[in-house]
Amino acid sequence: MEFKDKVVAAYQKIQDTICEGLEQADGKGRFEEELWSRDGGGGGRTRILQHGHVIEKGGVNFSAVHGKLPDAIKKAFKIESDDFFATGVSIVMHPGNPFVPIIHMNIRYFEMDDQTRWFGGGIDLTPHYVIDTDARFFHHLLKQTCDEFDSAFYPKFKTHADDYFFIKHREETRGVGGIFYDKLKPENTGMDFDRLLEFSEAVGNTFLPAYTELIDRNRDTDFSPQEQEWQYLRRSRYAEFNLVYDAGTKFGLETNGRIESILMSLPPMAKWVYNYQPIADSPEAYTLSKLKKGIEWA
Amino acid sequence: MEFKDKVVAAYQKIQDTICEGLEQADGKGRFEEELWSRDGGGGGRTRILQHGHVIEKGGVNFSAVHGKLPDAIKKAFKIESDDFFATGVSIVMHPGNPFVPIIHMNIRYFEMDDQTRWFGGGIDLTPHYVIDTDARFFHHLLKQTCDEFDSAFYPKFKTHADDYFFIKHREETRGVGGIFYDKLKPENTGMDFDRLLEFSEAVGNTFLPAYTELIDRNRDTDFSPQEQEWQYLRRSRYAEFNLVYDAGTKFGLETNGRIESILMSLPPMAKWVYNYQPIADSPEAYTLSKLKKGIEWA
Repeated sequence: MEFKDKVVAAYQKIQDTICEGLEQADGKGRFEEELWSRDGGGGGRTRILQHGHVIEKGGVNFSAVHGKLPDAIKKAFKIESDDFFATGVSIVMHPGNPFVPIIHMNIRYFEMDDQTRWFGGGIDLTPHYVIDTDARFFHHLLKQTCDEFDSAFYPKFKTHADDYFFIKHREETRGVGGIFYDKLKPENTGMDFDRLLEFSEAVGNTFLPAYTELIDRNRDTDFSPQEQEWQYLRRSRYAEFNLVYDAGTKFGLETNGRIESILMSLPPMAKWVYNYQPIADSPEAYTLSKLKKGIEWA
Repeated sequence: MEFKDKVVAAYQKIQDTICEGLEQADGKGRFEEELWSRDGGGGGRTRILQHGHVIEKGGVNFSAVHGKLPDAIKKAFKIESDDFFATGVSIVMHPGNPFVPIIHMNIRYFEMDDQTRWFGGGIDLTPHYVIDTDARFFHHLLKQTCDEFDSAFYPKFKTHADDYFFIKHREETRGVGGIFYDKLKPENTGMDFDRLLEFSEAVGNTFLPAYTELIDRNRDTDFSPQEQEWQYLRRSRYAEFNLVYDAGTKFGLETNGRIESILMSLPPMAKWVYNYQPIADSPEAYTLSKLKKGIEWA
């Protein structure tokens, strides 16, 4: 079995497990699957759940594509070779209750040739209302997963997430962060590719226990129309990040990826209110005060 | 009086006239003004109307800023000099009724030195539902304004608008277009700067008769919840264009402009529904069929 086939099998299994677990946690919503293929080569399984008890809209997407790199991308990444293979699982969940956080996960493997191959990915959390105990629980779990492989991983990947998930024009982080890593390979980790695949799988397998716990903690919290409004505002910031900064979204739009799969990350509904200012000492103001880089949650 | 002061005075007057006219057309909403100044030099008058009878959210912004160009911009535009002056009026209106179209206008003047100065701008229309007679009326009015200056303007600027207001990843235009022009100067128009200012003012003065007519035609049209949903979907496409492609928005975000003034163009509320497909032969499908380049509306 070729290495990339092993990655594909592992990722498909993770997609299956997560979809099953999320349906169970939601209690009502069911994923609808769409199989698609790409003109240049490969394809994917897009799975979308809408109008659940907990999840208003979310996607758990698997794809494995291959082909020739567009010239613009070759230039940008200074790559000589033409053929690429890329596989990954991408998740974004937009819950209906403002006290359940938005979550995002991505695990991916990219290969050009024996010299140019690596793993990337991460999980990060975007609460509409920051709840300290939840953020600490989440980061603690990620740290645990990382520490099993290398104690240097969590601090490095946590900082990387802070830097990456930053909405520059708002001067705020997208949420309370998480971990984000890219281009992991033997040279910079001291691990072989089989071990790196194990790490990638471990990250994938951290998603379900992390998110189902956060769902269970908050799904029954009552909320007011004003709190829902705040949720819609936070979602508009999420849309801003994804459309203006997110590298995966940009890559997808520029390489003629499957638009509906790429943009499944966008919220079911969002609001832009001119110059909204939260009341001092409100939970909304507290949340904004926590959308900063460098907070030690673990 | 320096030329740029003449432009500023003309643009401020246009802002005043348009705000007055829109308040009158709306019948309820009032513009709230915020004066702001920019660290690097200059400032603006942001005027926002929310929760009107017709206008759900809209802005008519004037700004006149000056200072040193950021290096990134100098490089991108291959400009040697450091000092710049830029003034303009920018408008976006998001009406509540899905049968009243979204409209956008921008008129602007940019100056670096005697050699590097020009006018730019345009008006374009984004109906949630394309109504042929409205689109024709709108384009006819724009053509009239252009023809008074140069009969070559309208066809050129109309094509430019088709090309510019294009959502590449959706393969659809943002709406039914309008006119869009940039870098108008004596060398490429045979008009002196005073005449070009007159053209810029004429475009500004076309906004009010065009939009108030479209408001009057459609403000009392009944609409269903399904038609409102479609409006929210169209608005999400508007947000996608502005965040992913719009040069003015990008420029503003990269040069640390006043975020709330720049992003006033974003809709009050938008929805992203996974893989929405309009029913065949529906008004929604008709609208999509008209979101194409090259339709002769005038």
